[in-house]
Amino acid sequence: MITIVIVGTGNVAQQLFTALNNKKEVKIIQVIGRDKNKLTPFNNCLNTATDYEDILDSDIYIIAVNDDSIATVSQHFKNKSGLVIHTSGAMDLSVLPTSARRGVFYPLQTISKERKVDFSEVPICIEAENNEDYDILKELANAISDQVQIMTSNQRRLVHLAAVFVNNFTNHLYLIGNEICAEAQVPFNILNPLILETAKKATQMSELNAQTGPAIRDDQNTIEQHLDLLKKDNHKDIYSVLSNSIQKTHEKKL
Amino acid sequence: MITIVIVGTGNVAQQLFTALNNKKEVKIIQVIGRDKNKLTPFNNCLNTATDYEDILDSDIYIIAVNDDSIATVSQHFKNKSGLVIHTSGAMDLSVLPTSARRGVFYPLQTISKERKVDFSEVPICIEAENNEDYDILKELANAISDQVQIMTSNQRRLVHLAAVFVNNFTNHLYLIGNEICAEAQVPFNILNPLILETAKKATQMSELNAQTGPAIRDDQNTIEQHLDLLKKDNHKDIYSVLSNSIQKTHEKKL
Repeated sequence: MITIVIVGTGNVAQQLFTALNNKKEVKIIQVIGRDKNKLTPFNNCLNTATDYEDILDSDIYIIAVNDDSIATVSQHFKNKSGLVIHTSGAMDLSVLPTSARRGVFYPLQTISKERKVDFSEVPICIEAENNEDYDILKELANAISDQVQIMTSNQRRLVHLAAVFVNNFTNHLYLIGNEICAEAQVPFNILNPLILETAKKATQMSELNAQTGPAIRDDQNTIEQHLDLLKKDNHKDIYSVLSNSIQKTHEKKL
Repeated sequence: MITIVIVGTGNVAQQLFTALNNKKEVKIIQVIGRDKNKLTPFNNCLNTATDYEDILDSDIYIIAVNDDSIATVSQHFKNKSGLVIHTSGAMDLSVLPTSARRGVFYPLQTISKERKVDFSEVPICIEAENNEDYDILKELANAISDQVQIMTSNQRRLVHLAAVFVNNFTNHLYLIGNEICAEAQVPFNILNPLILETAKKATQMSELNAQTGPAIRDDQNTIEQHLDLLKKDNHKDIYSVLSNSIQKTHEKKL
């Protein structure tokens, strides 16, 4: 059985705690967080601590804190014999202390407090510095996920960037769709089937083939009408930049 | 039973034909298209025609042609007694001839040839000029869909614009995600769970709450690293414009 200390109390720490807590392959022996109040969700863990002096010895230390804090926080683990890993898509393995055994365990999913994550469907991107550490990371990842992918820091950085496009930016487009529907006094959920079908299509066929709409048809009348309808400059900018990029990308089709 | 003539041979015409063809409430009596070869998919219809001289008398004429051709094509139906409707989100009812009984029947979904549309889940946005015509459009829409929504031309124009954001533009972001994964030599399908979860979240909770990522955290290090990683100017532009808009929209949170 692998013993685990989780460092952090945010969304990722909480969701990983929930996913790992009852798995027979692993045992969470401690959760560490600076703020005692934020440790409340972890009260069913045997041990919680606010002081890095109190770190227990463990096979793995999962540093699930903000990207900017990983380097500082992980310094407290530089003399530990266990494997020190972070959970960030954007950060290199090298932000962890060179004296430690180091690894990365990046769950490729949008993780918020409000919504329980089903980790069995979440790809876990792992990185380590030797075969032994890869084996222990695989065992940890397999305990919660069916999809484990070995990835270098360079690959992970790019995959995280791709995730920003398909998640953060897509989400912002949904929000704009919501605003436009509100202006039309039509409930946003009228777009639900379109949103879901668009996502399903992307996962099942080439999106190049799936592209439709005024930009790819070079339908200037509709494009100009749409720009007139948009009230906010940032929405007009998004419309123009994306329409131009669609046209540039599919130039041969126009 | 409502009799129908379909005008057009493109994606929408084909998918509507398939959806309506075996419904007991309606009978497709004719399909009209300029190009005889493109009428092949409709051969199991009783009657196809390439000449507007041969239009049969019908309760409804569905003009399912390109937006730019609706006005011209519908002129051939200006003296018919049946209801003349188009299927476009972007075009007003008023593009149809004033002498005709006019209506709109806009299926709010991404429709391509490759993928059979399940119309039962597609919102049908209808517009007519009197109660009798609304009744017949409702009957037509209810024959294939559980979700029928009355909408003015102004509302439909806005909803179509919202659809461009959540479908066309989202789709383009998926394509960019695909390109970045290819560069990382990681299969694009690693993003499938994220794409589907992001879409599901939007249909189930406020996207304002769901927004995550470097832009909303104002994480300038990651933003700059991402801009460096992007090779194409149009991708850099999209990244900047969307990140700025996310920050502007969520200003109070920063």
